[in-house]
Amino acid sequence: MIGPATYFRPERRAGLDDRTRALIERREAVLSPGYRLFYAHPVEFVRGLGTKLYTADGDEFLDVYNNVPSVGHAHPRVTAAIAEQSALLNTHTRYLHEGLIDYAELLIASFPNALDTLTLVCTGSEANDLALRVAKQATGHRGVIVTENAYHGVTTEIAAISPSLGGDPSLADWVRTVRPPVGDGSGMVADARAAIAQLQAAGHGVAALIVDTAFASDGFIAPSPGTRAALTAVQALVRHAGGLVIADEVQPGFGRLGATGAAPDLWGFPRHDLEPDLVTLGKPMANGLPVAALIARRDLIRQFGESVRYFNTFAGTPVSVAAARATWEVLHDERLPENAAVVGTALLEMLGELATRHERLRGVRGSGLYLAVDLVDPATGAPDSPAAVTLVSALRERRILISASGRDNAALKLRPPLPFSHADAERFVTELDGALRDLG
Amino acid sequence: MIGPATYFRPERRAGLDDRTRALIERREAVLSPGYRLFYAHPVEFVRGLGTKLYTADGDEFLDVYNNVPSVGHAHPRVTAAIAEQSALLNTHTRYLHEGLIDYAELLIASFPNALDTLTLVCTGSEANDLALRVAKQATGHRGVIVTENAYHGVTTEIAAISPSLGGDPSLADWVRTVRPPVGDGSGMVADARAAIAQLQAAGHGVAALIVDTAFASDGFIAPSPGTRAALTAVQALVRHAGGLVIADEVQPGFGRLGATGAAPDLWGFPRHDLEPDLVTLGKPMANGLPVAALIARRDLIRQFGESVRYFNTFAGTPVSVAAARATWEVLHDERLPENAAVVGTALLEMLGELATRHERLRGVRGSGLYLAVDLVDPATGAPDSPAAVTLVSALRERRILISASGRDNAALKLRPPLPFSHADAERFVTELDGALRDLG
Repeated sequence: MIGPATYFRPERRAGLDDRTRALIERREAVLSPGYRLFYAHPVEFVRGLGTKLYTADGDEFLDVYNNVPSVGHAHPRVTAAIAEQSALLNTHTRYLHEGLIDYAELLIASFPNALDTLTLVCTGSEANDLALRVAKQATGHRGVIVTENAYHGVTTEIAAISPSLGGDPSLADWVRTVRPPVGDGSGMVADARAAIAQLQAAGHGVAALIVDTAFASDGFIAPSPGTRAALTAVQALVRHAGGLVIADEVQPGFGRLGATGAAPDLWGFPRHDLEPDLVTLGKPMANGLPVAALIARRDLIRQFGESVRYFNTFAGTPVSVAAARATWEVLHDERLPENAAVVGTALLEMLGELATRHERLRGVRGSGLYLAVDLVDPATGAPDSPAAVTLVSALRERRILISASGRDNAALKLRPPLPFSHADAERFVTELDGALRDLG
Repeated sequence: MIGPATYFRPERRAGLDDRTRALIERREAVLSPGYRLFYAHPVEFVRGLGTKLYTADGDEFLDVYNNVPSVGHAHPRVTAAIAEQSALLNTHTRYLHEGLIDYAELLIASFPNALDTLTLVCTGSEANDLALRVAKQATGHRGVIVTENAYHGVTTEIAAISPSLGGDPSLADWVRTVRPPVGDGSGMVADARAAIAQLQAAGHGVAALIVDTAFASDGFIAPSPGTRAALTAVQALVRHAGGLVIADEVQPGFGRLGATGAAPDLWGFPRHDLEPDLVTLGKPMANGLPVAALIARRDLIRQFGESVRYFNTFAGTPVSVAAARATWEVLHDERLPENAAVVGTALLEMLGELATRHERLRGVRGSGLYLAVDLVDPATGAPDSPAAVTLVSALRERRILISASGRDNAALKLRPPLPFSHADAERFVTELDGALRDLG
């Protein structure tokens, strides 16, 4: 989640150009105040292509922020697929349509054999909401275990298991948090043991453990012997308590994470040796159209389907599926997971080098094209949120899109469209270097 | 909700043609068993136009079922808008984009002044889920009142207020049901009084009353002095208890309902003199793309926004908004609400005439192009679900798409795309007449 300080503040409108101020005033008159804009000086884009976004004046911005248009902004193959299918037909899944079947076969083939059935939904929140419904129904339990700064979505149910949202609503009484698997992971294992005991004592039992496999909102935790040992142990504890394991791949999935072995990883869970019963997918799935999914063990989803009526009107329609299919094909044909691995590794090295020259830059970490770096006070080493916010603004003026996030709002999060090139990485690092010099 | 008997049953596959059987077997191998197909002999469509759907062999079906492609299948203006915007840009609402503002202004202008702020989401379920979150947060209460066979969606929270789903999960303990406003509506008022007392006694208080303004799953209740008196009274009781009123326009909204006065009604709530605090929109909003919305009183949504972080990644994107805007323009330019009123009235009369000749047909009702008629046993007058199911199948063979629904699964529900013409209505009634004659 991006921190509040990088948003536009309405009281600051006086300094804006006429058009921006007029658009903002029109927005405020008709949209919910929840529609917050990025930047003290909000930016208006009118077109995009690949890793670039453009203003009406033709100013080009390098996108280091947007993970949804994963195969690149306005990719012509995805655009053509959407246009072609829209002109033909867009109904629902109660009639036969081969496009849905073709796509389901492609997608399911990329998962371990046990994860063999697909349910399409429209948003990552709907996917996680459905995963919890299935887990609760299958186990007869109610308790859910999440990491301590987890974010899983915005439905009532999922907001209640998302501690990173903070404030109101608070977590449900059937939720317990555990430390993420940092270091040797023993903290997570100890917390999980306690959480299970508490949930059982309260009569909730354990329905599920759910984890973002990149642990992005918990500070980006890359696979290591420690994460593997911890997650394997926690998975066993949860299973022993009768609970299921849900891997939330809404952000890390579809090849963003780079490679742990010879081939790049499409999904995050195998990197940590997790063997989930349910996997949720979302953001990059159709390059911007609302498409998300639940991949499940057949026995679980059959049991759910026998006792629960679930029909999602807009999910799995021919247009949504055509967009998802084209996105999948571009991802593979253009070898974007390979690109994420190669360019991500190079970018990580460049950032490491930059950190040797800027004491404010620490904690360079992440995998593939999903990276983070902390801004710290050079004197104390403490997280420096004002510096991060200043840097995000300075980079906006240098036509680089990025965000500050993390629990202290002092981390820069990098998650560009996957066609991000070496030249893009160099441009970003050059501008970051300049902005850091200006910061002093 | 459509009744189970009108679905394909896997054990019946032997009689199918090779292609249909092969597609079904491929579906079953990769999709959740929840992906049920319509009809004993499922149908595969490859294109659509206006009120017609076509198979690969060129067989034309008249669509009397689909309310999502509301301005007509594959409408060229909507298709062009989607194609054009997809080729340009599809980001999120944290950057300025004039398309979102233009559309919000158009939409908000069609609501009473007090309902002045828009929040876009992706599905009707998300809209109702958010409406309840806002209502609970604003009132500090938890209790929700729904009609006795209500259907409001599929998230965990919304399934728990949808008695029509039946089975598992059951309603939450903070939900009470009331009879719909039939007759003089006194049953609904009495039930609401009792529900409020029970919710208060249980410590839940009253957060909201939520009603589908067409009462479709409660049997289709058109506006009358009785509905107006009942809903006005229940609204006052709910307000007195500190609760809010939510109008669910996900199905009835956007001009389907015909006219009560000189001009056609865009929304259902004013027809019953309801003055909701929150209104939810969905299905027909973007002619098939996943777009839905919450319209709210500004004070409520401001209060929510101040204490809750809510960001919906896929909602309000340029492509979604372009589709919604084009759908809105076609709706008005082609005078489709007027068409719904005129053709709907004519169709209602034709069905009334048909009922004078077929004792099996009773209870012709509804408004605009949202109609229902019951199939009854001619001897007893009791709902006849097998007859309704047989009729749906017979109409499929006559290339008419329709569904059986209602609590007894004995009602035919008619909700075609809004360009439904007089000729379409005549074709439908002729085939229904023939199917009824065959039924004997």
